[in-house]
Amino acid sequence: MQLKKFSVPFHKIDRIFVSHLHGDHYLGLMGLLFSMHLLKRTADLHLYGQRGLDEIITLQLKYSKSSLNFKIIFHHVPFSAPSLLHEDDTVIVHSIPLVHKVPCTGFLFSEKPKPRRIDKDKIDEGMRLQHIALLKQGKDVFNEDGTLLYKNEDYTLDPRPSYSYAYCSDTAYSPELVKQLHGVDLLYHEATFTHEHEDKATETFHSTASQAGRIARDAGVKNLIIGHFSARYKELDTLLKEASAEFPSSHLAIEGETFDLEKL
Amino acid sequence: MQLKKFSVPFHKIDRIFVSHLHGDHYLGLMGLLFSMHLLKRTADLHLYGQRGLDEIITLQLKYSKSSLNFKIIFHHVPFSAPSLLHEDDTVIVHSIPLVHKVPCTGFLFSEKPKPRRIDKDKIDEGMRLQHIALLKQGKDVFNEDGTLLYKNEDYTLDPRPSYSYAYCSDTAYSPELVKQLHGVDLLYHEATFTHEHEDKATETFHSTASQAGRIARDAGVKNLIIGHFSARYKELDTLLKEASAEFPSSHLAIEGETFDLEKL
Repeated sequence: MQLKKFSVPFHKIDRIFVSHLHGDHYLGLMGLLFSMHLLKRTADLHLYGQRGLDEIITLQLKYSKSSLNFKIIFHHVPFSAPSLLHEDDTVIVHSIPLVHKVPCTGFLFSEKPKPRRIDKDKIDEGMRLQHIALLKQGKDVFNEDGTLLYKNEDYTLDPRPSYSYAYCSDTAYSPELVKQLHGVDLLYHEATFTHEHEDKATETFHSTASQAGRIARDAGVKNLIIGHFSARYKELDTLLKEASAEFPSSHLAIEGETFDLEKL
Repeated sequence: MQLKKFSVPFHKIDRIFVSHLHGDHYLGLMGLLFSMHLLKRTADLHLYGQRGLDEIITLQLKYSKSSLNFKIIFHHVPFSAPSLLHEDDTVIVHSIPLVHKVPCTGFLFSEKPKPRRIDKDKIDEGMRLQHIALLKQGKDVFNEDGTLLYKNEDYTLDPRPSYSYAYCSDTAYSPELVKQLHGVDLLYHEATFTHEHEDKATETFHSTASQAGRIARDAGVKNLIIGHFSARYKELDTLLKEASAEFPSSHLAIEGETFDLEKL
């Protein structure tokens, strides 16, 4: 329902990463799978999650006597050490071990270096596609006789920056995280409680906004989003102020809001 | 989410009846159970449904390492013959066998006869509570010497009518239903398709709006609500017209609308 509300096209989703098996983190999944089925999806869907997620899905498919018209490929996520979960031409995804009441991981998405960009002002229609491909790779282009035809720096611009995003759902305060989060462009870290309720946070394996800010500061990330606020807080200002006191570039995760990494 | 949206208080729900294990009919249940837990519910909750529902719930509780602070009492609903599921001072609930791809039942809720009502205009403050109780039971009240003190008809009004409501979720057209639905005050019957797509209805074990109207007419119910419309219908007029052609007192089940049995 939220994906629809915020106009996220279902068919563009090929991989779903589930941090842990608490209801507020996965109960919408089954409905999404059935919706994808009704929308006639045929492409494989990769699911990354803790042991049990596959069993829960399989059981519900069994009783609904449904066989989906697409394949679900389940990837069991190790939770005791960071693991490579996925890599393709543009992105690498690692798990981030978190500290919670049940096995739980965050996810680190790192864009790979991007190709150089052709400077459109310098291109003429007579240029050959294979020459443009070489220029994008950062190479100079030579004539058959070995003389320089196009010098790369005359025709290309620096690549767009590559960004990284770390998603740390439910977790107790864990300074262990710092080394894996070092320098990420955007960190989402839960902040269920304010400092006033730190005992509650400890007891329930959650973090305070101060603690989230401290992780962001110690890891030297560029931006922090805090979220997963306890329903007891009717206004979120205190949470934002607390995080910002530790780490100024803090933001609130408000449902439906987008954060543009190029502009943050 | 919908219960919240329409201000239905969770704590007033003691029994939940699930027709069958297709996603659109039960996937919200797990979230409701967790919400009830967070709202500190302690009262027993009775769940009526097909075999498998208990297993699905138990598995998800296991992986979330949750034990709820209330007890769930699961009642397995037979689906081959109408069965008495629940009876208390005010209501009787029976299952209604339906015809669908998976085991599926509807539910018939029948109010018991209600007590006579005290006519407030006729009551004076000197009357004793035990005399009022006798009047509500429809009895005359006598003095100790056997002479008539209050004649019932002078002090009471007829009871309010008792109503019945039948909920027939997903089902193929099934004339078998008629005898169990005879004379109910309000029938909800699915109408997934228009007559034009009757072949689709047959194939998927659903009904058309015409068929729903026919069931209502043949069972001599007082009012019909049709629902569970296929997403292909952008406007619902055709469905309502079709049902109304068979049975004039037809209504559309629009989410959030209420039907007052006393006013229908």
